[in-house]
Amino acid sequence: MNQKLGKASIRPEQPVYILNSGSVVGTKEGQGPLGLLFDMVGEDDMFGCETWEEAESRLQKDAVYLALTKSGLQPEDVSFIFAGDLLGQSIATSFGISTYQIPLLGVYGACSTCGESLTLGVMSIAGGFADRVVCVTSSHFASAEKEFRFPLEYGNQRPLSASWTVTGSGAFVLGNEEALQSYRGKDISVTQKKENRARACITGMTVGKIVDYGLKDSMNMGACMAPAAASTLEQHFIDYGSQPEDYDKIITGDLGKVGQRVLIDLLRDKGYDISEQHMDCGIEIYDGDVQDTHAGGSGCGCSAVTLSAYVLKQLEEKNWKKVLFVPTGALLSKTRFNEGKSVPGIAHALVLETV
Amino acid sequence: MNQKLGKASIRPEQPVYILNSGSVVGTKEGQGPLGLLFDMVGEDDMFGCETWEEAESRLQKDAVYLALTKSGLQPEDVSFIFAGDLLGQSIATSFGISTYQIPLLGVYGACSTCGESLTLGVMSIAGGFADRVVCVTSSHFASAEKEFRFPLEYGNQRPLSASWTVTGSGAFVLGNEEALQSYRGKDISVTQKKENRARACITGMTVGKIVDYGLKDSMNMGACMAPAAASTLEQHFIDYGSQPEDYDKIITGDLGKVGQRVLIDLLRDKGYDISEQHMDCGIEIYDGDVQDTHAGGSGCGCSAVTLSAYVLKQLEEKNWKKVLFVPTGALLSKTRFNEGKSVPGIAHALVLETV
Repeated sequence: MNQKLGKASIRPEQPVYILNSGSVVGTKEGQGPLGLLFDMVGEDDMFGCETWEEAESRLQKDAVYLALTKSGLQPEDVSFIFAGDLLGQSIATSFGISTYQIPLLGVYGACSTCGESLTLGVMSIAGGFADRVVCVTSSHFASAEKEFRFPLEYGNQRPLSASWTVTGSGAFVLGNEEALQSYRGKDISVTQKKENRARACITGMTVGKIVDYGLKDSMNMGACMAPAAASTLEQHFIDYGSQPEDYDKIITGDLGKVGQRVLIDLLRDKGYDISEQHMDCGIEIYDGDVQDTHAGGSGCGCSAVTLSAYVLKQLEEKNWKKVLFVPTGALLSKTRFNEGKSVPGIAHALVLETV
Repeated sequence: MNQKLGKASIRPEQPVYILNSGSVVGTKEGQGPLGLLFDMVGEDDMFGCETWEEAESRLQKDAVYLALTKSGLQPEDVSFIFAGDLLGQSIATSFGISTYQIPLLGVYGACSTCGESLTLGVMSIAGGFADRVVCVTSSHFASAEKEFRFPLEYGNQRPLSASWTVTGSGAFVLGNEEALQSYRGKDISVTQKKENRARACITGMTVGKIVDYGLKDSMNMGACMAPAAASTLEQHFIDYGSQPEDYDKIITGDLGKVGQRVLIDLLRDKGYDISEQHMDCGIEIYDGDVQDTHAGGSGCGCSAVTLSAYVLKQLEEKNWKKVLFVPTGALLSKTRFNEGKSVPGIAHALVLETV
């Protein structure tokens, strides 16, 4: 039976499978350490479009196309799409995925949106409401800077605590046991495998709450989010009765170098040492020394493309057996920032295991 | 067993109950035809706050407080909160409900968000992941005008097709059979009833998809949303094998007078005549002739407060037995509007029945 676990966690009776996924990134991400792992790297960051927003929409469209194609599916094979992005009124989503005409449940959790969309996707499948769903999120450096900070043309200086919003979108096809069986037998030339395997499965989730330490610096998102990540991780360990060493990796979304230090310190105060297991998608995706990205990568796309291209690959190859994937979000907005308000954080955790 | 129905609908095995709800509105809504039915009417639209955004956050906070109190519950009795609003990065939510520290799943579907939050709430409960959840949405006339159109100080003229964003928030406590039993036995003086009854139950849902007829007029949201409402209603009738006359009322969120005409015409072309059953929350909430609200009310709060104060009351009193509640959303954004883009629509349908 599906169940609630402790205060904020849930466990599906049967694991929900990530059948396949797609990742599309911009040029900078393509030049980074994970560059060769992404499914598609744009020739430039406009992706053939006329505006940054349209380019981000294009990212979502392409990521969903890749995830569906690699799963041997058509849009009509999917019950729902859980989708979101960072822009006001989630416009990358509204204009990106409408072409597929899949019933849409729009989500918003800032950069934690990837975790939220997967959580709701699992609920819908494990709850018996769908066989297959798609979860997609995106971000774009230029549309995000325009939305949250300064016009690029202004050439604003960035402090070392600033992160670089990832231009990218990751899409995931989730399915139940039946969907997996049908996927196994499909002849999908793209994947060039004799028998299709699910990339990983999701066996548990902890839903985060808003945590606000009062930080107001939009150039230090890592510090804004770290307390939320600490809160969700602590709650996860309590609800599951688990310890950091039960996971091969504990992977946050986009804390960057500053946020990582804050998270490790905060959790140490709570009695958990995750310094051995911790990995941050924002730190992995760029070579900070060479690429001038300062604290690391950030954005909805950061955790999504790193999950698709790198984390799932490690799970597929059984280098890791069980990881905790914790997309982190800073609930920043231009309006509240200009009104002198803080940047609250939120983070959701998912247990991913090899199949 | 919970099930998927047709292309876009779902049916929980057991109905999910709306245990109780709360509605908070501004002065204009308080002076409208439904004024006496709302739980709380503000003395002015600032609600004791310093900014419009903060006032909208306050609306959410108060609505959730009312819904919880009227259900005899504390925040910790609730597993998840599904919440959203119209503002960029859902800031009314981020700053409104954090005080309750309930694990948050943020949603965005423009003015259809009330329907989306209830849909996901039902999924989480019927799926066995929660006993009780809260669903809350809000809008505020002044924060919405600032976000989407012109500063109020500018005194812009409004065409007759324009709608008036409702200042209000509606919150709903959903629960399963067990939660209902526990609620029945509670001594809640506020409700002054000998035995608590659920206000209604949710027995089915149809998830909408993005429908874009290419309309670009941010002063005619009704016409932008009507095609989406028509699409969702047609899909609902097909999936459920039902007809308009199977429902006592078919209640859209905020189409207003222009959108209502478009919807009825579009559905007539598809072979469904809903002219007898149709009601629109946006038309009900204001007296258009006296209150100068033109086409009607709109916003996330419009359908939410009308559901809480009026629709659920009719179901409680068994004046209606079964209605189709269809919050409608226009996926408008300032950025895409300024780039000359259209306003796509989305709508979700829920079957509400008397208990």
